[in-house]
Amino acid sequence: MKLAMTLALVTLALCCSLASAEVCQSFLNVMETLFTGTLSSYEAAVEPFLPDADMKDAGIQLKRLVDMLPQKAKESILKLTDKIVRSPLCA
Amino acid sequence: MKLAMTLALVTLALCCSLASAEVCQSFLNVMETLFTGTLSSYEAAVEPFLPDADMKDAGIQLKRLVDMLPQKAKESILKLTDKIVRSPLCA
Repeated sequence: MKLAMTLALVTLALCCSLASAEVCQSFLNVMETLFTGTLSSYEAAVEPFLPDADMKDAGIQLKRLVDMLPQKAKESILKLTDKIVRSPLCA
Repeated sequence: MKLAMTLALVTLALCCSLASAEVCQSFLNVMETLFTGTLSSYEAAVEPFLPDADMKDAGIQLKRLVDMLPQKAKESILKLTDKIVRSPLCA
């Protein structure tokens, strides 16, 4: 029974850690369209989270600003976001 | 023993869910300094994630752009980020 309990705990811990990785994936998709997608692909990525009118409007303003960044900077910010989300502080 | 195992599983599940909320808090702190803090407070928030030189430079460029957004838009984007991170898709 001790072995069964240990296995169950380890499995649950693994499931939890996979679940929180998936969390981040969903958010990372929004970030990715913000930095590399079109305005409409960004809006489509945000839509499932039911933003209100102010949030949508602010998102569009942010997207227009972000589009002014050089390609290399956009890529570095995505890498940084990925690094933060997957860091031991966030795992 | 079944009760003990059930309690252990429920406790672990709760711990996991608290842990992933904390994950998000750590990331939300970076977002908060990006949108409402000074450049140096943003840099300090990112530092624990060990950004490389390109990431630091890109972060500074992004911070300068974000600082051009009206206060209301900044607040709406933080609310949207919070909503995404705490949504059922990310919980």
